[in-house]
Amino acid sequence: MKKFLNSVDTVLTESLDGFAAAHADILVLGEGHKFIRRRELKPGKVALISGGGSGHEPLHGGFVGHGMLDAACPGQVFTSPTPDQMLAAVEAVDTGAGCLFIVKNYEGDVMNFDMAAEMADGVQQVVTNDDVAVENSSYTTGRRGVAGTLVVEKIVGAAAENGMALPALKALGERVNAATRSMGVALTSCTVPAAGKPTFEIGDGEMEFGVGIHGEPGRRRDALKSADAIAEEVCAAIAGDLGDRAKGPALLFVNGFGGTPSMELYLMYNSARRIFERQGVTVIRSLVGSYVTSLDMAGCSITLTMLDDGMTALWDAPVHTAALRWGM
Amino acid sequence: MKKFLNSVDTVLTESLDGFAAAHADILVLGEGHKFIRRRELKPGKVALISGGGSGHEPLHGGFVGHGMLDAACPGQVFTSPTPDQMLAAVEAVDTGAGCLFIVKNYEGDVMNFDMAAEMADGVQQVVTNDDVAVENSSYTTGRRGVAGTLVVEKIVGAAAENGMALPALKALGERVNAATRSMGVALTSCTVPAAGKPTFEIGDGEMEFGVGIHGEPGRRRDALKSADAIAEEVCAAIAGDLGDRAKGPALLFVNGFGGTPSMELYLMYNSARRIFERQGVTVIRSLVGSYVTSLDMAGCSITLTMLDDGMTALWDAPVHTAALRWGM
Repeated sequence: MKKFLNSVDTVLTESLDGFAAAHADILVLGEGHKFIRRRELKPGKVALISGGGSGHEPLHGGFVGHGMLDAACPGQVFTSPTPDQMLAAVEAVDTGAGCLFIVKNYEGDVMNFDMAAEMADGVQQVVTNDDVAVENSSYTTGRRGVAGTLVVEKIVGAAAENGMALPALKALGERVNAATRSMGVALTSCTVPAAGKPTFEIGDGEMEFGVGIHGEPGRRRDALKSADAIAEEVCAAIAGDLGDRAKGPALLFVNGFGGTPSMELYLMYNSARRIFERQGVTVIRSLVGSYVTSLDMAGCSITLTMLDDGMTALWDAPVHTAALRWGM
Repeated sequence: MKKFLNSVDTVLTESLDGFAAAHADILVLGEGHKFIRRRELKPGKVALISGGGSGHEPLHGGFVGHGMLDAACPGQVFTSPTPDQMLAAVEAVDTGAGCLFIVKNYEGDVMNFDMAAEMADGVQQVVTNDDVAVENSSYTTGRRGVAGTLVVEKIVGAAAENGMALPALKALGERVNAATRSMGVALTSCTVPAAGKPTFEIGDGEMEFGVGIHGEPGRRRDALKSADAIAEEVCAAIAGDLGDRAKGPALLFVNGFGGTPSMELYLMYNSARRIFERQGVTVIRSLVGSYVTSLDMAGCSITLTMLDDGMTALWDAPVHTAALRWGM
């Protein structure tokens, strides 16, 4: 295992300490590294809280700040945070208007966020499940929540900033999730620090088609294909699942898994954009970069969110977080 | 070689097409992929032009936009752009106040930018050479220009936006370069698409200490060390080279080489920050991310820029580019 670390036991806390120090203008770290929260809270605003296993950075801590999340709870690598983390976050950021949990659909996360929601007052939840690769998988009943979670957090975050109430925010989150589809491809495995070796074996000429963000299996192992051929198949899976909705204005988000450089991501974006536009999608907003990662895995995912005017305005609204920043 | 590509001959142009399409609000691609330029020029402003071999993205194209560069000329991967690219860029963005070339110190780049500067009118140059690893190397006479180039481009870009004249911008660029030191470490090699195999061999338990951003050798090959031990040695090299200047306010920039995830970069930042602060440096500004990369190389560099009030204000000034954005 070749990683910058001192000890596998302290990777997460040392990284969080660095993250909080680098972005001290935006956020603070909760006691015992239980959560990251905004430095300045906005009284009367519904608090948005997300979280999940670490190893997907900048998701979710990198999206804490004005216009997006109020707090994020980091679990150990690829391991759900515990309910006491979410409860501590609620206590730290709920200013009286209630909290919305945004949860990726994995059994551990769903169970732990559910438990916290039952123990706290005034909490509602949105569960994301944008991954069209497989219906059930290693850690999920139903579809996995992957890179589309960023889109839900951005759009719902902007609406919360504008003063939208809790039930409407939950409905909006579910609407954005329903308008969003993703699928990913891995060229290499990731390596979990505590395991010290690659999560899965993959040959020099192979790729994992439909991979999950923890390296869990997708649709099939296949021979490595050209970027265009990969994009064709991923875009077809996304468009096929959207059906008649795959027409008109959309956000195209090409996401790197951590080990894939920007040059390749823009090449994939170029390919995916041409394919979607040929089919009647109009790409009016774009995001390209490594935002929902799988440690050091080489690979990428493609996410398409069908936009209406309201969603587009909320996407464009000011955001000031460690990983996404515009308009301020 | 496991990369997202269609053909090694078209990697660069397809990636540039995707980049220009994704950021069409900010920039346009010059004819024949010779340069990337701002969509909106500001008459009377000195034009800042940079460029170099591709494979270091987002450097330089990702820094084209308000508050930073006016144009960037992308060469083939790890190959200098040709003088006709710089001349075409000058023609496209010089609004009459002259141009400043910002050039990383590599023989090919220096030669080609020099040629273009001689053929164009009203051009001056700043050459960056922030890498303390080695005095001369595979492609340089003198020190290499690496991640510190971003700092020069940001600070000089803000001053140009404020209306500073060409000779003063050149002096400022040289002052920022002189206040900046960097050094990098590689855990793996990068793979140039046209070569199809890793640039250098490196064992499972080894690292290249002082590596260049093209994978060129550094100070030595060594056994892989802990993050703290690596940071100690890199910070000592930087502080030692700065000498008495390594006291007081500074920007600490931890840069990933393309294959290293955010979690490890923040861990290195945490380590480097503690080391520098113990020595009397006060980290008042931070940047952590993969900004000056070497394709898919796993590794990182640490850059320290000693700041004065003027430089800090220019660092903080609004910027709106594909890769750096704040204040607007």
